[in-house]
Amino acid sequence: MSRLTIPMPREQLERIVRQAVRERFAERLSAGEVKLAAAYTPNLVVNISARHLHVCREHLDRLFGPGSELTVYRWLYQPGEFAAEQTVTIIGPRQRAIQNVRILGPMRAATQVEISHTDAIALGVEAPVRPSGKIEGTPGCVVLGPKGVLELDHGVIRAARHVHMTPADAAAYGFRDGQYVRLRVHGECPTAFEGVLCRVDPRFLLEVHLDTDEGNACDLVNATGVELLA
Amino acid sequence: MSRLTIPMPREQLERIVRQAVRERFAERLSAGEVKLAAAYTPNLVVNISARHLHVCREHLDRLFGPGSELTVYRWLYQPGEFAAEQTVTIIGPRQRAIQNVRILGPMRAATQVEISHTDAIALGVEAPVRPSGKIEGTPGCVVLGPKGVLELDHGVIRAARHVHMTPADAAAYGFRDGQYVRLRVHGECPTAFEGVLCRVDPRFLLEVHLDTDEGNACDLVNATGVELLA
Repeated sequence: MSRLTIPMPREQLERIVRQAVRERFAERLSAGEVKLAAAYTPNLVVNISARHLHVCREHLDRLFGPGSELTVYRWLYQPGEFAAEQTVTIIGPRQRAIQNVRILGPMRAATQVEISHTDAIALGVEAPVRPSGKIEGTPGCVVLGPKGVLELDHGVIRAARHVHMTPADAAAYGFRDGQYVRLRVHGECPTAFEGVLCRVDPRFLLEVHLDTDEGNACDLVNATGVELLA
Repeated sequence: MSRLTIPMPREQLERIVRQAVRERFAERLSAGEVKLAAAYTPNLVVNISARHLHVCREHLDRLFGPGSELTVYRWLYQPGEFAAEQTVTIIGPRQRAIQNVRILGPMRAATQVEISHTDAIALGVEAPVRPSGKIEGTPGCVVLGPKGVLELDHGVIRAARHVHMTPADAAAYGFRDGQYVRLRVHGECPTAFEGVLCRVDPRFLLEVHLDTDEGNACDLVNATGVELLA
């Protein structure tokens, strides 16, 4: 379990504890143990996932040498998830390449390359929109690491918009796992992203993932507000 | 009037005539001259505007030599508008450049560079979202042509989403010039672009302009349908 061998940073730990306290407080509130006007309020965060890949043990060995490990470049918002120091070059048909594509850790059971539509055009690959993990029948690409080359025969997708949430968040919104909801982004480029897939798990924190095309279309960085709607 | 010196292609002429016939027919219908179940139905078209620029006489002279003219590479959907054969390189602060940026004709009173948010990041310029023509206080860039270099001190924008429409289209939708409406794009990346500015003019044809970030975010090319809503 590579997830367990990596010490969790203070920032991620604090987020998890804060979420647990808020949920516990809400439970006591609904059980009538405490009396307060405030109920559980989800803390909505929207982040942009730049192009990246997840790798399996076998492929990490191939790219970075046998027994190599992913090391932390930057911790992400979801508990235990991190951008690794390890980067690769991905190459599409007709030898078009994108350099410095970061691996996200920890390792996974299957290698998966997640790119935007803009990246797909640049690479010349028809990446279908898929939820993470649903990579059957998708195109492949060539991945170039410092110690070897990998010819993926499938695994290149454009990640479907999704929102990670805890059961408490889902209950607060009235959503269920697998439901499609809407994200409204307010600002100078107001946009409602529809078809946002709810992924509910107690290990998650509430966070919407958009790709760079979506983030740039709505100018997320300068957005004045975000809301999640049925 | 450079607009008048360029012969209009058969395709554009046909579109204009078809629109005029449809509008005339609708008028006669509402005047009771003809009796038919069919009313005027707007023909909604959504197109992606890639990065481009409009140039004034003085700046075209500077970039391509005195007295040079724009020549037609491809006619656009709007009557009289065309992508020119002439392209330039635009250069942002810190010497980052984007090559092969096409000029759109005919010439205009003021030079204006329209780029996406992705382009703005690549160039390192803070391009504000503006309706076409509203370029006061915007950043500039360097424009490189085959015969000269231009230092624009303003004019770089991200064009605000907008829809061109005839008065008949506006009436059919119940919209007015200057109103902000919504464009819903159906498909695998369903998206509602809000804040779409209505520009009503009898010389227009009904067409929504998105930029490449917006087009890629909703995967417009594979969209199954589009609709314009209040």
